[in-house]
Amino acid sequence: MAGAGRLKIGIIGFGPFAQFLARTMIKQGHVLIATSRSDHSLLCSQMGIPFFRDFDGFFAAGCDVVLISTSILSTAGVLGSIPTTYLHKPKLFVDVLSVKEQPRGLLLQALPQEADLLCTHPMFGPESGRDAWFGLPFVFDKVRVRDHALCDKYLAIFQAEGCRMIEMSCEEHDRIAAKTQFLTHTIGRILDQMEIESTPIDTKGFEKLLQVKYSSMADSVDLYVGLFQQNKFAKEEMEKLELAFQTVKSLLMQKAE
Amino acid sequence: MAGAGRLKIGIIGFGPFAQFLARTMIKQGHVLIATSRSDHSLLCSQMGIPFFRDFDGFFAAGCDVVLISTSILSTAGVLGSIPTTYLHKPKLFVDVLSVKEQPRGLLLQALPQEADLLCTHPMFGPESGRDAWFGLPFVFDKVRVRDHALCDKYLAIFQAEGCRMIEMSCEEHDRIAAKTQFLTHTIGRILDQMEIESTPIDTKGFEKLLQVKYSSMADSVDLYVGLFQQNKFAKEEMEKLELAFQTVKSLLMQKAE
Ligand SMILES: NC(=O)c1ccc[n+]([C@@H]2O[C@H](COP(=O)([O-])OP(=O)(O)OC[C@H]3O[C@@H](n4cnc5c(N)ncnc54)[C@H](OP(=O)(O)O)[C@@H]3O)[C@@H](O)[C@H]2O)c1
Ligand SMILES: NC(=O)c1ccc[n+]([C@@H]2O[C@H](COP(=O)([O-])OP(=O)(O)OC[C@H]3O[C@@H](n4cnc5c(N)ncnc54)[C@H](OP(=O)(O)O)[C@@H]3O)[C@@H](O)[C@H]2O)c1
Repeated sequence: MAGAGRLKIGIIGFGPFAQFLARTMIKQGHVLIATSRSDHSLLCSQMGIPFFRDFDGFFAAGCDVVLISTSILSTAGVLGSIPTTYLHKPKLFVDVLSVKEQPRGLLLQALPQEADLLCTHPMFGPESGRDAWFGLPFVFDKVRVRDHALCDKYLAIFQAEGCRMIEMSCEEHDRIAAKTQFLTHTIGRILDQMEIESTPIDTKGFEKLLQVKYSSMADSVDLYVGLFQQNKFAKEEMEKLELAFQTVKSLLMQKAE
Repeated sequence: MAGAGRLKIGIIGFGPFAQFLARTMIKQGHVLIATSRSDHSLLCSQMGIPFFRDFDGFFAAGCDVVLISTSILSTAGVLGSIPTTYLHKPKLFVDVLSVKEQPRGLLLQALPQEADLLCTHPMFGPESGRDAWFGLPFVFDKVRVRDHALCDKYLAIFQAEGCRMIEMSCEEHDRIAAKTQFLTHTIGRILDQMEIESTPIDTKGFEKLLQVKYSSMADSVDLYVGLFQQNKFAKEEMEKLELAFQTVKSLLMQKAE
């Protein structure tokens, strides 16, 4: 281990969200290494993070925790491309995907029995968690944890920042997140499609819709598609949204007669 | 006039929005009287406002300004029920309807030539303007103003509270408000129809949608229907919303193939 309370964390997938998490982890004194599809070595060297272009170097470097922060849609492929023998070394695997049942299944299948698995979803990002993480929800499911000290040390990263720690099954997370986060992203993308813009006479409510649009569009389209495709509850929410739109429309048409 | 800087304002339609405006007008020292379809005499007596059950007493009481705060849908009927001779007395008529072209037309038709007309839309309400009106948009159109001192005295009510004063034609207001306020109410009512509720894992974005739902539902369904029915630009926004939903849905379906 990197030292008392310190963890050596290896990040797979060094996109916007991993970069955002890494800043706080470094601030807390943890030691990071990273690997990713694209070459993030310049940014990593600026952040003081050794960057590996392949899994050989990455797994050879040795980590307490491997953190998976790939896009929802690419995670199966990325996991499939890691030589199985490499997966025997780290004691704990953690993912941060915005859906939870899918990575849970993938990781249980890919990982050796002896590896612990913690599925998490920090329910904030570079926008909503820019200034602080205090009070923001951090969902986790200790899917297979035997080394509780190590797992707790990882969770302490978020506890220390004041996150609201919520232990919840992956399925329950997906059920709720479809009704909340996926719906929010859908509304945000619809508003963007409508090209809504600030005007001199915005109401407070409209200002909130503008914020929803901007924060949804700050995330990648892959993230949005992943929220739909890999959450079995999302389809029903799309149907409910369409039905609700039709109900409101009929109210208008009926009263307008 | 009620005194230096003070106005005697007669309110027609003493619903939630008029009650909300009245509190600030009284605080500023203006003298109010009111009439309405329903009997609001108890509330009015608590607020120190003489309440008239019919137009005879209301117009006999004499006012500098008549403020129309009836629902969008009822305004034509209410104006039609006022004996024409009564409309010759007040110097200035002001309306606060959330659409502007429609009351402009109605009032120009109903009022005698000598009456001045100021069409306004305070773009906030009991929710968004609860704590203060500072910085909130106040849209106005001096449709027919000859007594500028009187009109300015009325506008000063909102200026004094720090509203952002925006002079804009009624048509321009309706064009923009369809894209902003009407859309916001529509989203709010759709979300209410979906029965969205707070959960233990709400994101910041979802919290904003909850606020949009609650503030939209705080207004009457008549107000919402009025925003659609009496704003010629609203229909196009409904169509754009439906189209945008379909576009986002196809994006999901296509990528999910
Ligand atoms: N953004 C947020 O607010 C937020 C919040 C909570 C959780 N999350 C989760 O965090 C994860 C990362 O999110 P993100 O915001 O950084 O953006 P993202 O678009 O969801 O994922 C970007 C990451 O996925 C990698 N990737 C994409 N396609 C790939 C492929 N075909 N093969 C290999 N790697 C691929 C990218 O690698 P390269 O950069 O090397 O190209 C990058 O590291 C996602 O699972 C997301 O659900 C995001
Ligand atoms: N609420 C807001 O935030 C807000 C903001 C800006 C502008 N406005 C505008 O202010 C006006 C009043 O709005 P509101 O929020 O108070 O609610 P509303 O439902 O739009 O209007 C209620 C008022 O309309 C009267 N009314 C309704 N139907 C009537 C009928 N058939 N005959 C006669 N009077 C009738 C009611 O009289 P009784 O109470 O006597 O039954 C009450 O005074 C509307 O034009 C609205 O667009 C509202």
